[in-house]
This record gives sequence, C-alpha cells and structure tokens, in this order.
Amino acid sequence: MAGMRVLFSASNTKAQPWLDALRQALPGADVQEWQPGAVQADHAVVWSPPQQMLDEQPALKGLFNMGAGVDALLKLRLPPQARLVRLDDAGMSVQMAEFVCHALIRHFRELDVYDAEVREGKWSFRRPRLRADYPVGIMGLGVLGERVARAVAQFDFPVNGWSRSPRALDGVRGFAGEPEFDAFLAASRVLVCLLPLTPQTEGILNRRTLSRLLPGGYLINVARGAHLVDEDLLALLDDGHLAGATLDVFRTEPLPAEHPFWRHPRITVTPHTSARTLREETIAQIAGKIHALERGEPIAGVVDPVRGY
Amino acid sequence: MAGMRVLFSASNTKAQPWLDALRQALPGADVQEWQPGAVQADHAVVWSPPQQMLDEQPALKGLFNMGAGVDALLKLRLPPQARLVRLDDAGMSVQMAEFVCHALIRHFRELDVYDAEVREGKWSFRRPRLRADYPVGIMGLGVLGERVARAVAQFDFPVNGWSRSPRALDGVRGFAGEPEFDAFLAASRVLVCLLPLTPQTEGILNRRTLSRLLPGGYLINVARGAHLVDEDLLALLDDGHLAGATLDVFRTEPLPAEHPFWRHPRITVTPHTSARTLREETIAQIAGKIHALERGEPIAGVVDPVRGY
Repeated sequence: MAGMRVLFSASNTKAQPWLDALRQALPGADVQEWQPGAVQADHAVVWSPPQQMLDEQPALKGLFNMGAGVDALLKLRLPPQARLVRLDDAGMSVQMAEFVCHALIRHFRELDVYDAEVREGKWSFRRPRLRADYPVGIMGLGVLGERVARAVAQFDFPVNGWSRSPRALDGVRGFAGEPEFDAFLAASRVLVCLLPLTPQTEGILNRRTLSRLLPGGYLINVARGAHLVDEDLLALLDDGHLAGATLDVFRTEPLPAEHPFWRHPRITVTPHTSARTLREETIAQIAGKIHALERGEPIAGVVDPVRGY
Repeated sequence: MAGMRVLFSASNTKAQPWLDALRQALPGADVQEWQPGAVQADHAVVWSPPQQMLDEQPALKGLFNMGAGVDALLKLRLPPQARLVRLDDAGMSVQMAEFVCHALIRHFRELDVYDAEVREGKWSFRRPRLRADYPVGIMGLGVLGERVARAVAQFDFPVNGWSRSPRALDGVRGFAGEPEFDAFLAASRVLVCLLPLTPQTEGILNRRTLSRLLPGGYLINVARGAHLVDEDLLALLDDGHLAGATLDVFRTEPLPAEHPFWRHPRITVTPHTSARTLREETIAQIAGKIHALERGEPIAGVVDPVRGY
C-alpha cells in the first residue's frame, strides 16, 4: 500500500480513533483527515462529507460510505469515476436483528404495558396473544433484511418478506415488486421497514399503505425517516387502525424538540441507534475492499447510482 | 376413552374453558372439575391442587401438571402410584426465548436508558458495547434452556451452558455439575436461571455465586423465586458488582407490596409472565399423553420425585 493516499471525512464522529485504526489496517498508506486543499487521494472513507471535498477529489477510485444507506451521498455530486461502496453488514445486521426483535417482542408480549403497571405497583396479567395472529412483514430483504427475517422466524412468528425481485428465504413467505405489495401488507400485522431510501421508496409508509395492514398494526421503521409520512402515521394511530410504532429514524435528525413523536404514548422513539457503525468491523471491511480494488478484484457493496443502493 | 374419568383442578384460572377444551380433546371421557367427594378418577390435570384432592384420589394413574416446574406439587403427598407428569414445552420454550432475549437485548443495548432519556427529550448516544464482552451463562439446559441458548447464540453472544450432566449443544460452551460451576460463573456476565427448583438448587443465586460473575453482571431469573437470595442480590447491586436484574419470579407471588424489588431502579419486575401456559397447546399435549398412558406407551416429562424434575 506504499504511496496510496486515503482521506477520511465524517461529520458524526471523532476522527482520531478512525485515523489510527485505518493507518493500522493499511500499513504504508498515507491516511489523513480531509482538509480543504488536500492532495489528490486514491480512496476516501466518509460519512456525510462536504460537497467541497468531493469536488476537490476528482481522482478518487473508491468512495467508502461508513453506513449501509447511501441516500445522503447520492444527493451530492460525486467524483465521476469513483466507485461508491456501501457498508455490508460489518456488525450491523446482528444489531438490526436485535433491535427489531426487541421492539417486536416488547409489543407482542406487551412488556411495555407490564412495565407501566409494575411502576404503579400492579401485579396483573394480560391475556396471551397468539403469534399466528402477528405475522411480521419485512420490507427489504438485503443483508440486513434477511438477517432480521431469520431472527424473527426463529421466534415462530409467521414472516412475510417483500423485495424488488423475488427472493426465496427459508421460513419466509415472499412477495415481490409493486404487483404484490398490497397482498404483502394485507398479510402482515407488524411491518418492519429496512428498505434503501430512493425516489421510489420515499414516503412509502403512508396512509394508503399502512391502512392495508391487519387491524392493530405495528410499525417498526429502522430504515430512513423519509420513508414515513409522519402525519399519516399519527392519523392512523389516532383512528385506532395502528396500535403503535417504534421509530429509530426521522426526517430531521435529531428529531426536533417540538415534534409530536417525542411524547406520543404509543410511539417509541430511539435516536437512530438501531445499528451503529462499529469501528473495528467497519475498518476491517473497508481495508479489505481497498486491497481488493487495488488488485483489480471485484468487491461487494458497489452502489448502482441509478438504482440508488 | 369411553368410561375414563378425568378431573381438573387449577387455582389460578377459570375452569370452564379448560373443561370444554379437555372434553373436546378426550371424546367419550367424563371430564369434571374436582369437588370434595368426587368419584375416583383415572387422571387429573392440575395446578396447585388442594392436598385434600390428592388424598381422596388414590387411584390416579396420571397427575398432569399445567406447567414445567413441579416443585410446588412435590411438596404435597401424592397418590402413591400416580405418575407425575410435567408440561414439556407446549408453547413455553419460545415464550421463554422471547422473554430472555428481550431482557438481554434491552440491557446490552441499553434500550432502557434510551427510553428514559427520550422521555426527557434527550437525543444522545451511548458507546456501543462489544458482544464479546457479554458472555451469557444459561443455568439449566432442558427443553427451555436449550431453546433459550439457541436464541441467544443467534444474536452472536458467546453462550455458556451449565447442566447437571454434560450436554453438547452447537454454539454453547458446556459446563457440567458442581465441579465446573464456578468456572461457568466466572466465564459469564449475564446469568439466566432456568433450573428446576429442588433442594439442591434452592438459594443457588446467592452472594457467593453471583459475585463470581464478570463485573457488571446481570441476572435474569425466569425459574423460581426461591432460587434467589433476595438480600444478596440487593447487596451486590448496591456495591456495584452487579449492574441489574430482570426478575419474573419471586419467593412470594404476587410480590408483596413492601418488597424492595418493586421500586429498585436497576431491577425490572414482571409478574411471572415469562412463559404462560397456553390452553390449546397444553391440552393437546396432555390429551396425547393420556392416550399414550392408556395404551401403555412411554411418555415424555414423567417426573423423578427423587431428582425433583
């Protein structure tokens, strides 16, 4: 890697531990945090980089996103020949499976209700729900969606999966594309959104779609805030068609102080923490891909800018 | 089943739906709720029955407990030739896996802390924990323990299992018997108790054993309240060796109003709801075992009164 130059630019984390780890993973490479006027680099590792950085680095061969979703990057002008590479898993799919199963079990077993009753000193029972009545629909069956589907199926819930093109997964009833979307919704009571955010999926969680869920539906959105039409969720909670929601992502983050989601009794808010970028796993994966690119080998996770993921 | 007599006696539920379901599952049998002076029956389906019932029914061939734990029954005088049969799974193991995974994920991912911060309108992050630092030790590897171990392993936690006799389970580091108990504890940060309650296991969760867990240990007790020495748990929480506990079972149930567990900030209390007896599954299993006993076939779940489970 002697002579190779790598830039780092992330708006949401301290640079130093990442620089140290990148230097260790890419011995011989020149790894620097990006500053205006930096020398031309071969690769960049980024999270929400400034447009100026991308404009100043036309020679980039690889642009490595420190997350799975590249929707924010695709809104920028990118160096023309750089391959845009998203993070594959890197410890995120197990976190996503954990987070979704926790939210699902908490709702299905009414553990939030038990918590509230115990806080009031009450020892009382809820009638057990039948898991056959709680089919879980998973939107998006990529690396994350597949892992989540497997984890949910393991708790014996019926699982429906919806993906752009048909995917056969053990224990998952598959639905594909626009023609099967309504049938997928009508067969699901809990809906988990793990879709990439693209012009086609923006606002896909809206009054029309959410009202097709089985009555008493529950939404878990761990993808992007812009998938959801906030007012439509609030209306469907008000009119009782939906029982509740766990939301980890929002149109504006941090969620603005005045937003009604903060204090809604049937919405659980978490601060975009469902699947955190883990430094060790992320650096190992990106370093491996940089090596592969330099040797001319194919790598996973190259984004198709037209498809949007 | 013509002429066969079955009695039902449960202190914790309404009899009628159970009687209806038993009659449907055992066509031709005479199924009645027990009353003093009832005719001699062949089998009984019970939860905490009165001693008088057992004394009046010396001819019982099968005594079917509506739960997995028979510790309460074994404190009674039992009809001498009746086989005591515990419930095997019947929808309980998946509930146990759900409950334990929910408690484990909630603690490991600090989702309880996030909930509290969100209630105060705070959007802030906790440093992600490494799951390699959170080995989960499971005490008891019967039907329930095995299912819980598999579910936990699926979230990539290191899993240790402790059982009376050695058991080889995929993805579980096995420890067996008294000689390996301390090593099992020392290798675990989260401890899940799924043991049967016997004279050997009563009070097994005490200062000596809990203080051997890795620092910042977390206890999940879903077995019986008498496994735990309440004061020892409180002392280890106070001195900081333990980080917290989720307790579903208590020495006295309902948990007395004045008990410190109710309002302890690091103890999550639930009202013995981790694995509820599900009528449909339970009746199907017991009816199947009654048929098998009547045909002289072997059945699973016959309790060894000396071993205690």
